Amino acid sequence: MSLLTIGTMAFDDIETPFGKVEKVIGGACTYISWAASYFLEDIQVVSIVGDDFPNEEIDLLKSRGVDLEGLEIVPNKKSFFWSGRYHDNMNQRDTLVTELNVLADFDPVIPESYQEAEFVMLGNLTPEIQLSVVKQLKKRPKLVAIDTMNFWMDVAWDALHETLKHVDMLIINDDEARQLSGKYSLVHAAEEIFKKGPKYLIIKKGEHGAFLFHEDKIFFAPAMPLAIVKDPTGAGDTFAGGFMGYIASQEEVSFEVLKTAIIYGSAMASYCVEEFSLDKLKNLSQYEISSRVNRFKELVHFIV
Amino acid sequence: MSLLTIGTMAFDDIETPFGKVEKVIGGACTYISWAASYFLEDIQVVSIVGDDFPNEEIDLLKSRGVDLEGLEIVPNKKSFFWSGRYHDNMNQRDTLVTELNVLADFDPVIPESYQEAEFVMLGNLTPEIQLSVVKQLKKRPKLVAIDTMNFWMDVAWDALHETLKHVDMLIINDDEARQLSGKYSLVHAAEEIFKKGPKYLIIKKGEHGAFLFHEDKIFFAPAMPLAIVKDPTGAGDTFAGGFMGYIASQEEVSFEVLKTAIIYGSAMASYCVEEFSLDKLKNLSQYEISSRVNRFKELVHFIV
Repeated sequence: MSLLTIGTMAFDDIETPFGKVEKVIGGACTYISWAASYFLEDIQVVSIVGDDFPNEEIDLLKSRGVDLEGLEIVPNKKSFFWSGRYHDNMNQRDTLVTELNVLADFDPVIPESYQEAEFVMLGNLTPEIQLSVVKQLKKRPKLVAIDTMNFWMDVAWDALHETLKHVDMLIINDDEARQLSGKYSLVHAAEEIFKKGPKYLIIKKGEHGAFLFHEDKIFFAPAMPLAIVKDPTGAGDTFAGGFMGYIASQEEVSFEVLKTAIIYGSAMASYCVEEFSLDKLKNLSQYEISSRVNRFKELVHFIV
Repeated sequence: MSLLTIGTMAFDDIETPFGKVEKVIGGACTYISWAASYFLEDIQVVSIVGDDFPNEEIDLLKSRGVDLEGLEIVPNKKSFFWSGRYHDNMNQRDTLVTELNVLADFDPVIPESYQEAEFVMLGNLTPEIQLSVVKQLKKRPKLVAIDTMNFWMDVAWDALHETLKHVDMLIINDDEARQLSGKYSLVHAAEEIFKKGPKYLIIKKGEHGAFLFHEDKIFFAPAMPLAIVKDPTGAGDTFAGGFMGYIASQEEVSFEVLKTAIIYGSAMASYCVEEFSLDKLKNLSQYEISSRVNRFKELVHFIV
């Protein structure tokens, strides 16, 4: 199976109580691809960078089996840049700088060789760009998932709603779910969001875990309680990458598969935050992944 | 097995977005006893009320098998009264009125007939009163659990720490765990709190579930996602009552038993908040309890 993923590839400056790093590799598409690469080889990237983006990072992704035909490298331009500082509790952050650079002109064209993609992960971008990707696909994928954020609810409400009509799954956090639905109870929020198009909804609650809603079914995945969280940047995208990667590696898309996929996504995210940037995510073993998944199982297992 | 419980029996005025009730029955000991009464018959109450406390409420508890020899009824005095208003999100509340009344003179004497108690639940009270109960017991119970609150950390730090040396289990929320330990990570908080005496720690996170820590083991119980939460008052005490009631109904105290007990406590709490005061908690069937426990199992069950 193949996973098409679209999103940013970027540089980040990050400051947390555990340190400060400058111009490290970031971006939704980067985290998604790295996380998914532990589950399947056929990953197709649609993104844009400037010519300042390191060749060795591109080569590393290629060595993981990631297809970068859809990566546009713009000469004499700079890559997207984001700078943020986390508060002491790591649950809140301030964006210090956002430089769109090449992203300002991002108008993705899906390569012909990507047309057979069976799974699509639309990273957080303008709803218009996300919709354009879906509309360029000549064959309906098995599952199209989308990430978005409160910013697009503020400035692009209608476009976001048009896009939501064309996706199967929405992956957002609890604040975003409440803003999008106008409901405080997440059970009610899910009911409202299903009316907008998606038939699957994942609500991420950060250190408090994540819900999966589908029809009248609910699954809950806890977050792994960690002694040290050094850098939460990319955790949500890593979750999405592990989640979609696991699904794409399976024979069928069932609720059971989605449940297990959330646990794999949570396991990948729990590793991601233990180091800055992609440092941990680039160096995981299959044993580390499966042993953390087993820890998730122990964490919630009880006998009645 | 028998469960000795100490705490308030009170009147509450409660206002939530779903309505307002006046002079309804409340108090930690009331919620604990009601919740525990679904699991065992041998419950011993130590509490204090004025002569305004309704006889029919006392008779109802007796009909559930609750022993009220340790309930002091003070003539010509009023019962403890609390009044609170919940914010729209139900996660925060303002205390409007606290009238100690009879509680100001509470100096509990453990009846001789309670001396064989094998399980003890010390509801939230001054640490001095909680310690006096433990010291009056001639035989060490199998498990002594204690609830407390940030107020006692502010005004009775030393007394609370002296009391913690004499208990097996502490049941608090995440803010309280952080204040008591001085650590943000709950994993680190647990390590610090174990140094203070308890060998079991439950950290409640309200709508985000609860952790059980013991040695290097961690168990996590989610909260049931509910469409409607009418009144969170007493949810923590109901959790503690269901939890201790379940444990006291079992042959042995093992980590496995404690895990299942947390799910039973969570199930009871999830019913408690669906109606005001004790309205739901007074009218549960064993079928409702076991079916909700099964929903908890479905909520977190996955296959790897």
